[in-house]
Amino acid sequence: MDNFAFYAPTYFAFGKDAEAQTGTLVKRFGGTKVLIHYGGGSVVRSGLLGRVKASLEAEGIDYVELGGVKPNPRSGLVYEGIDLCRREGVDFVLAVGGGSTIDSSKAIAAGVVYEGDFWDFYSGKLIEKALPVGTILTIAAAGSEGSPDSVITHENGMYKRGATGDAIRPRFSVLNPALTQTLPPYQTACGITDILAHLYERYLTNTREVEVTDRMIEALMLTMIHEGPRVIENPDNYEARANIMWAGMMAHNNSCGVGRSQDWNSHNVEHELSALYDCAHGAGLAVTMPAVFTYVMHHDVMRFAQVATRVWGCQMDFAHPEVTAKAGIEALRAFLTGLGMPRTLGELGGKEEDIPKLVDVLCNGNGRQGAISGFVTLNETDCAAIYRMML
Amino acid sequence: MDNFAFYAPTYFAFGKDAEAQTGTLVKRFGGTKVLIHYGGGSVVRSGLLGRVKASLEAEGIDYVELGGVKPNPRSGLVYEGIDLCRREGVDFVLAVGGGSTIDSSKAIAAGVVYEGDFWDFYSGKLIEKALPVGTILTIAAAGSEGSPDSVITHENGMYKRGATGDAIRPRFSVLNPALTQTLPPYQTACGITDILAHLYERYLTNTREVEVTDRMIEALMLTMIHEGPRVIENPDNYEARANIMWAGMMAHNNSCGVGRSQDWNSHNVEHELSALYDCAHGAGLAVTMPAVFTYVMHHDVMRFAQVATRVWGCQMDFAHPEVTAKAGIEALRAFLTGLGMPRTLGELGGKEEDIPKLVDVLCNGNGRQGAISGFVTLNETDCAAIYRMML
Repeated sequence: MDNFAFYAPTYFAFGKDAEAQTGTLVKRFGGTKVLIHYGGGSVVRSGLLGRVKASLEAEGIDYVELGGVKPNPRSGLVYEGIDLCRREGVDFVLAVGGGSTIDSSKAIAAGVVYEGDFWDFYSGKLIEKALPVGTILTIAAAGSEGSPDSVITHENGMYKRGATGDAIRPRFSVLNPALTQTLPPYQTACGITDILAHLYERYLTNTREVEVTDRMIEALMLTMIHEGPRVIENPDNYEARANIMWAGMMAHNNSCGVGRSQDWNSHNVEHELSALYDCAHGAGLAVTMPAVFTYVMHHDVMRFAQVATRVWGCQMDFAHPEVTAKAGIEALRAFLTGLGMPRTLGELGGKEEDIPKLVDVLCNGNGRQGAISGFVTLNETDCAAIYRMML
Repeated sequence: MDNFAFYAPTYFAFGKDAEAQTGTLVKRFGGTKVLIHYGGGSVVRSGLLGRVKASLEAEGIDYVELGGVKPNPRSGLVYEGIDLCRREGVDFVLAVGGGSTIDSSKAIAAGVVYEGDFWDFYSGKLIEKALPVGTILTIAAAGSEGSPDSVITHENGMYKRGATGDAIRPRFSVLNPALTQTLPPYQTACGITDILAHLYERYLTNTREVEVTDRMIEALMLTMIHEGPRVIENPDNYEARANIMWAGMMAHNNSCGVGRSQDWNSHNVEHELSALYDCAHGAGLAVTMPAVFTYVMHHDVMRFAQVATRVWGCQMDFAHPEVTAKAGIEALRAFLTGLGMPRTLGELGGKEEDIPKLVDVLCNGNGRQGAISGFVTLNETDCAAIYRMML
C-alpha cells in the first residue's frame, strides 16, 4: 500500500427532512451571507428551494441566488457567480442540486478568493483556498458532496477538465434520499452508472495487495447491483434510494481509494463525449467503460477476473482467466443496458467521423501531450481504437 | 435506514515513517504545549518516543510526559493526567500507543476542561468539550484512532464503561503499519479479534434493508479473514499489516455503522471479564462472541445465515437456515482459535463461581437496571447462561 493522507471533514446530515437543518449548518460553519446556487426549475417546483430559504431565514442568514446550472456545467456561469459573490460580499456557497451544481459551486468558491483566472485550477493548479461550500444533494451520482473535486467545461474550446483541493470539500452535505424519488428513471440510471464508474476507476490499480480497499470497492459495487434494479422498478423505494445515496458518497470520498494508484481513463475518454455532444455523463460512461475495459483487460487479466467472480458472480475459468475477465465486462454492460443505459456512440448522438476530433482534444487538449495516463497509458492510436469499439 | 449524522474530521497520515509528521500536525491543529501520554517501555525501547519528541522539538513545541497506561486503562492515571495538564497549561494531548493509551488520553482531554468528575462522562454524559487529541497508533485493534469513543475502568468498583462525543475524536492520527510489526502474535491476534467484534457489533442490527453498510462490514470482515493468518504467519508482512490497520480504523469510525441500530452486547459481556480478570480485551471477545451469538442467533437466523454465506463461505442450507447460521458462528470460533485465541472462560483466568458476580456487575452496575440492551435485550438469566456457555 502506498503512503497516503486522508482527510474528509464533511459533516453529513442524512435522512428524511434533513434539509431543515440547512440554516443551522450554514451558521455552524461560519456562513453569514450565502450564495444559493442551483440548476433549473425542478428545485423550485418541488418546493425544495423554498424550504432551504426558509431554513436560512429562520437563522437570520442573508442570501443571494444564482440559478441556471446546466448538466456538464460551463465556465460562463462560474465567472458570473464569482462576480456576484464579490459584489454581494458572499462568504458561503450553498449548492442545491446534483453534481453539476456542486461542481459549479466549488469553482465559484475557489474563484472568488483567487486573483487570477479560476480556470488555472482546471489546468492543474491545486486549490488551496476557497469560500466554504455546503450542499443539498438531489441526485446520487457524482459523489461531489463528499469529494475535493470539481469538473467544469470551458466554453472556449469545450474542454471538460477537473480541479481538486481539500479547500473545496463541502463543509456539510445534506443527503435526503426522499429528494431523489422524483428523478426520472434515466437520470437515476445515469447516477448509478457514474457511481459504478467511480468504483471501477479506483479498482483498476497497479498497486499490489490492497485487499481492504479492493473489498470495500466490491462491497459498494454489490450494493449498486442489488439496489439499482430495485429503484428503477420502484422509484419510490426509499430504502433502496438511501443505500444508493450513501454508497455514492462512499464511492467517491476516497476512503476506498487511498494508498493505491487509480485509473480515471474511462472518465477522461467520456468527458470528451459529454463536452461535444452534451450527453449525460453517466450515459457516456455506460458506453465508455465496457470499451475501455475490453481494450485494457490484458494489462491485468486477474484483476478483471477477480471483479468478475467476486462482484458479478461469474464462475472462475481457471484454465482461461481471460474468459472470466471478459464475462465480467459483459455482465457490467448487460447490467447497465438493463437499467436503460445506451450501448453505442450513436445513441449518445456521436458520429464515426468525429473520432479524430475526439481523440485530438482528449490526447492533446489543454496541455496534454499525445496521451492520457492511468491504469494503462493510452495514446492517440489506443483512444481512436476505443472510440471505434463504441460504434 | 434510520436518519443519522456522520462527521469524522480526523486527518490520517498513513504509511512508512508517518510519525515524522507529528510536530507539523500538532502545530496544524493548534497545539503549543503537549502532554505525551503512553504505556510501558516498548515505545521507549523501539525509539518511537524519541522520534516523536524530535518531531515536536523540530517545530519548537513544548511537552510534558505521562507514561504508565496499562491495558484496560484505569481511572487513577486519568485523574493524574488531568492534574498534570492543568498544572502545566497543556493544550494538546498526544497518545503514543494502542487503544488503551488513546482512550486514557481522551479521558484526560475531556476531564481537563470539565469542572466536575470526568467519570460523569462514563456514566452517560455526552462529551461536548475537550482538549484536542492526536494519536500515534502502535496496534491495529481498538479503532479509537478514528472514533469518538473511550472506555475506562473505574478502580472504585472495577466498572469498565464507555464515553462518547465528537469532541474526543482525534484531530489527527498517525498510522504507520511498520510500527505494528514488532507486536507479539498474541497481541496481534487480540487486535484482529477486536476489529472483528467491532464489525459484528454493527452487523447485528434490527434495522431492515441496510445493504450498503451490510456489504461494507462484510468487506472489512473478509479483509481480516484474508490478512489475519498472513500476519500471524509472517509478522513482518507490511502489506498485510497495512490492510489490517486501515480496516481497523474503517471498522470503528462508524462509516459502516450509520443509519442502523447496533448491538454492543458482546463488548458489554466481555468488559466485565477484562475488568475482573485483567485479560486482554481481544482475548475476552474471542471467548464472548461465539457464546453471545449462539445465544441470540434465533432472534434473526437469516442475518446469521447471511454472514455465514457471504463472509465465511458456508453453503446456504435453504431448508434449514439455522444450520448455516450455526456453521458461521463455528467458522468464526475456528478462525479465532487458529489465530491463537482462547475458547473458554478458564483460559482467561475465569471461574464458574464468579458468574453470579459477573452477572450482577454487568446487569446492575453503574446505574443499569437488571439488563443490557442491544440486538437482543439480555437480562440476568440470559447473561448467566451466556457466561456458562463459555465454560
